[in-house]
Amino acid sequence: VSKRLEQFQPTVFTLMSSLALTHQAINLGQGFPNFDGPDFIREAAIQALRTVGRNQYARGFGVPELNAAISRRFEKDTGLKVDPDTEITVTCGCTEAISSTILGLLDPGDEIIMFAPFFDVYQVVTAMVGAKMKTVVLRPENGFAVPEDELRAAFTSKTRAILVNTPHNPTGKVFSRGELELIASLCVEHDVLAFTDEVYSRLVFDGEHVSLASIKGMFERTVTMSSMGKTYSFTGWKVGWAIAPPHLSYGIRQAHSNITFSTATPLQWGAVAALEAPESYYQDLRSAYIARKDILVQGLKEVGFKVYEPQGTYFVMVDHTPFGFKDDMEFCMHLVHKVGVAAIPPSGFYEDPQDGKHLVRFAFCKDEDTLKAAVRKLRDHL
Amino acid sequence: VSKRLEQFQPTVFTLMSSLALTHQAINLGQGFPNFDGPDFIREAAIQALRTVGRNQYARGFGVPELNAAISRRFEKDTGLKVDPDTEITVTCGCTEAISSTILGLLDPGDEIIMFAPFFDVYQVVTAMVGAKMKTVVLRPENGFAVPEDELRAAFTSKTRAILVNTPHNPTGKVFSRGELELIASLCVEHDVLAFTDEVYSRLVFDGEHVSLASIKGMFERTVTMSSMGKTYSFTGWKVGWAIAPPHLSYGIRQAHSNITFSTATPLQWGAVAALEAPESYYQDLRSAYIARKDILVQGLKEVGFKVYEPQGTYFVMVDHTPFGFKDDMEFCMHLVHKVGVAAIPPSGFYEDPQDGKHLVRFAFCKDEDTLKAAVRKLRDHL
Ligand SMILES: CSCCC(=O)C(=O)O
Ligand SMILES: CSCCC(=O)C(=O)O
Repeated sequence: VSKRLEQFQPTVFTLMSSLALTHQAINLGQGFPNFDGPDFIREAAIQALRTVGRNQYARGFGVPELNAAISRRFEKDTGLKVDPDTEITVTCGCTEAISSTILGLLDPGDEIIMFAPFFDVYQVVTAMVGAKMKTVVLRPENGFAVPEDELRAAFTSKTRAILVNTPHNPTGKVFSRGELELIASLCVEHDVLAFTDEVYSRLVFDGEHVSLASIKGMFERTVTMSSMGKTYSFTGWKVGWAIAPPHLSYGIRQAHSNITFSTATPLQWGAVAALEAPESYYQDLRSAYIARKDILVQGLKEVGFKVYEPQGTYFVMVDHTPFGFKDDMEFCMHLVHKVGVAAIPPSGFYEDPQDGKHLVRFAFCKDEDTLKAAVRKLRDHL
Repeated sequence: VSKRLEQFQPTVFTLMSSLALTHQAINLGQGFPNFDGPDFIREAAIQALRTVGRNQYARGFGVPELNAAISRRFEKDTGLKVDPDTEITVTCGCTEAISSTILGLLDPGDEIIMFAPFFDVYQVVTAMVGAKMKTVVLRPENGFAVPEDELRAAFTSKTRAILVNTPHNPTGKVFSRGELELIASLCVEHDVLAFTDEVYSRLVFDGEHVSLASIKGMFERTVTMSSMGKTYSFTGWKVGWAIAPPHLSYGIRQAHSNITFSTATPLQWGAVAALEAPESYYQDLRSAYIARKDILVQGLKEVGFKVYEPQGTYFVMVDHTPFGFKDDMEFCMHLVHKVGVAAIPPSGFYEDPQDGKHLVRFAFCKDEDTLKAAVRKLRDHL
């Protein structure tokens, strides 16, 4: 193994999904639904599969129709007009948008600020580049609010970028406009880039989703990343994108075209259809997720967890202290082996694992019966 | 742009494909067929798309059935038994197998030997890691034979790996068993890893394809990479894999799970079907490509090129000197603008671009009529 990577554990998502299978536990770990997205999206992909010319290499930075659809969607959502051909790069999921952005724009020794807990990919890719992660911890006891003084102190002359994930996995926090304006002002003051992971932008229950790129002075320094997986319930299609001004898109594409080169063509056509979904689709999605969240949150409270109610995403963080386990991994192992429910231990999402060891993350991207069954198991066996 | 990447030009494949579109030229540039693979493969993907559970995240290192199918295929082809769950990683095309292998196993300062001309991805990903590429040039005047003394001299105490692409893009060379035994003995002597890109293994017209991993002492130090794109004529599906002993697979997976995390699930099911193709499929594929090659090679000779007849792949290298252009880029620009044929200028595939400026690569992964039409255009307008 490369020395830069040997300090990291293998991904906890794969570990927990595989344990869930082995022990036939209900999988509230890794974030994928146990239902599919709408049939009009599926049928668009099938149509493409049946069309000669839509099964060979796509244009490296995206099928033109998809870049155009992303651009239209982004304008509707943020009011920002972007050029489909020079400002949008289609990637193999948002994960590859993140890796292409970090590998394409950062240099060894650069510092990148991120909030902990963080999606573990951010940390590992940062290490691949030889860049340095600086974390600012969002603490449950403060409602995961951005600690202004700590954030200010994290900016140095070496800071090249800040990574903002809103709505935020795993806490369910939605960054407020005020917090994003603070981040924006620091980016402008220190001439720092912003990389935003907004895959859960349609899953907001409380508050509103604001794209950092839409704040004054930010578009020119921001890479906005998202994907179709979470919004349209096809996480396995791995179609994502990065939106950024041409000078940043250039670097992202240099990385992307050498990491994967291009993204699955027929599924990009599925994404074209997805992005044309009517507004009612998003309203229904949100309502369905509010119902799912309420079932899980209510259930977890009744079981005795301290629950940090999420404002967005399809995850909820809870404190497992009442149950007397040593740490999050021990608790999750008990859950999957003895209770029959898989969850995610978040201590690996902090620079200092101590910060997360009393916490556990559950996913509620499952049909209501499955969520109810999981709550029953927790109630009966904890 | 990251300083490590700013020295590189954007991918010439995208440039030439886009010029081919703009000028409505026949695209003999980037290597993708203008026909699709067999319907039983397409239908398997469609079947998966219609199956709930096959549209969400796959297991990070591959749908179990695909890992099993790759393992069976590899055993049939090489006689080597590999464990599907610890020795195979499914990736977003062979390109991601390459990037995951290099990013996962090399460190800054490591040296990696490769043969020039090389697929440009190898060079850029090596630069991303901060490793150092050392190239050994395969020269057309020597029939692209491996120059033993130069190869020996390329090994130093810092050499960590050698990258071997056989059948070889862009030259069409198939490494002989003798050449691979030489490489193997040097790897063992210097305790060096081997990374092999074997995506064209089924496209051999003259000689036999030998996997480096099958040579004595090599399996334990070899990463064998391939994909379904070229063999089954679905280049746009982006399903590839890396086969390596567990200690190497571990590093590859550490990179893969942070670069893309997983590969498009429904298309992996298409690949499962593909890998079960009967032997006759491969025989027919080979015959069809021999016919295509003969049309293009014969035509190019008649037009007046010096042609380096390929032993494998679906590419042919020619010398354009008789036509009096300054270099390969100028010649390719003339071709796409004035002749109506797109080809690939290979000088970017050498450490010293001088080595390639008299050469041009044409692809023959097109139906016979298209190849004949291209030859006519070359004859009429050159
Ligand atoms: C690697 S899984 C992608 C992110 C996600 O779904 C999760 O955090 O569970
Ligand atoms: C980036 S295209 C993948 C390789 C190939 O097909 C080519 O060399 O043309």
